[in-house]
Amino acid sequence: METVLYDDKEHKFILIGFADSKDETSIPSNQYLITNNGVSALIDPGGFGLFPVLVSRVLKYTSIENIKAIILSHQDPDVSGGLNIWEEITKANIYISKLWTRFIPHYEMKAGANIIPVEDDGSVIKLSDTFNLQIIPAHFLHSPGHINVYDPVSRVLCTGDIGASILPCSQNHLFVEDFDAFLPCIGGFHQRYMSSNKALRQWIKEIEPLDIQMLAPQHGYLYKGAAIERFIKWLYELKCGVDLL
Amino acid sequence: METVLYDDKEHKFILIGFADSKDETSIPSNQYLITNNGVSALIDPGGFGLFPVLVSRVLKYTSIENIKAIILSHQDPDVSGGLNIWEEITKANIYISKLWTRFIPHYEMKAGANIIPVEDDGSVIKLSDTFNLQIIPAHFLHSPGHINVYDPVSRVLCTGDIGASILPCSQNHLFVEDFDAFLPCIGGFHQRYMSSNKALRQWIKEIEPLDIQMLAPQHGYLYKGAAIERFIKWLYELKCGVDLL
Repeated sequence: METVLYDDKEHKFILIGFADSKDETSIPSNQYLITNNGVSALIDPGGFGLFPVLVSRVLKYTSIENIKAIILSHQDPDVSGGLNIWEEITKANIYISKLWTRFIPHYEMKAGANIIPVEDDGSVIKLSDTFNLQIIPAHFLHSPGHINVYDPVSRVLCTGDIGASILPCSQNHLFVEDFDAFLPCIGGFHQRYMSSNKALRQWIKEIEPLDIQMLAPQHGYLYKGAAIERFIKWLYELKCGVDLL
Repeated sequence: METVLYDDKEHKFILIGFADSKDETSIPSNQYLITNNGVSALIDPGGFGLFPVLVSRVLKYTSIENIKAIILSHQDPDVSGGLNIWEEITKANIYISKLWTRFIPHYEMKAGANIIPVEDDGSVIKLSDTFNLQIIPAHFLHSPGHINVYDPVSRVLCTGDIGASILPCSQNHLFVEDFDAFLPCIGGFHQRYMSSNKALRQWIKEIEPLDIQMLAPQHGYLYKGAAIERFIKWLYELKCGVDLL
């Protein structure tokens, strides 16, 4: 079931899919839809198998032709695997780091003409006069060309794999409630997949100027309030990836 | 066209696909087939679009039921995008780093029951009494769970993205001939996608005990003779990824 996380009538930020995979061999993942005065953006729409359930939910909030942007945090199949069908039915521009523009056509895309490369220092995607999304670099976390999406209206930062937790784990529900109990759900993943503490600190520097109300990762629970601060402090000190080789 | 790179009648190492993508928006990639006394392994079979041309070539050297292993260097769509069709027609075990076993089912795989996780310190895949393949860790180059395949009979090391070059570039042909002229074809890619010099040196340590006749990357030209040594010396000194953040 989808959850509207921000709604001021003109602008909505919606968790459109939350751990919906019924297949235990696949890692569950989160998908997001942002709508603003009839214009929409879809974040990390996921593998092909999610398409039927996602499209029916998306249609409650927007029309297919009003999806103007599909933004991909990185190249992995749990993020981008169903891209060819979204390409087929929408006329959306597809935004991904310039590192991956020549890789994602291997998802059996038809044309690929509407793939827009995001430069290494990020960008602003201007979707209408009232709808801008900010792309924040998050390189090597884990993907060499990983990006985050910041929505300045809802003040939600979509963090891709940063903050991802593997469910079921801990006594939390939609949001991280007890950060200490939650640590075992993120510890192993961040230590092994994130490339280095240097990359983490670089990302923390990138997001410092933002007014963040919520962190929305691509897997598992979301973060708000004190959990955001706890999480970022934990990341700042974390040794991971090549630090541990 | 395919190229047999090693052949002693009982054992063959074959470049089964070399930059065959006709679509300029997709990065061209290499695929490999190893056969030993009727038993076969397929390395990095690539995206769905390559399937028709690859299967017709594979059938010149082996039967579909004799493909016992499909080994994936990492999770990217240019490596693994056509996995669901190979899963459908073969009974092969699919080997990939344990980091990606729950991600690749998002390639719309039917069962996923035959996915075998490779542990972080590598392994030996025993395919018959005369056919073993050695899995060498190559973490964070670029993928956090990147692996290489070493064939001790042909003494070819399949290096995945390590050594990958973007064609067309330089005056080389199938093999790197003039390493100095070739450097611009690998410089930018390795600097930006490979995570750090520490990870490169760790990999060099891993491959040092191997008797290597050829490096076979997943994109672009292959390396033999002096080019192997030149390439490894260059990598040993290369600052890349988080070193440059």
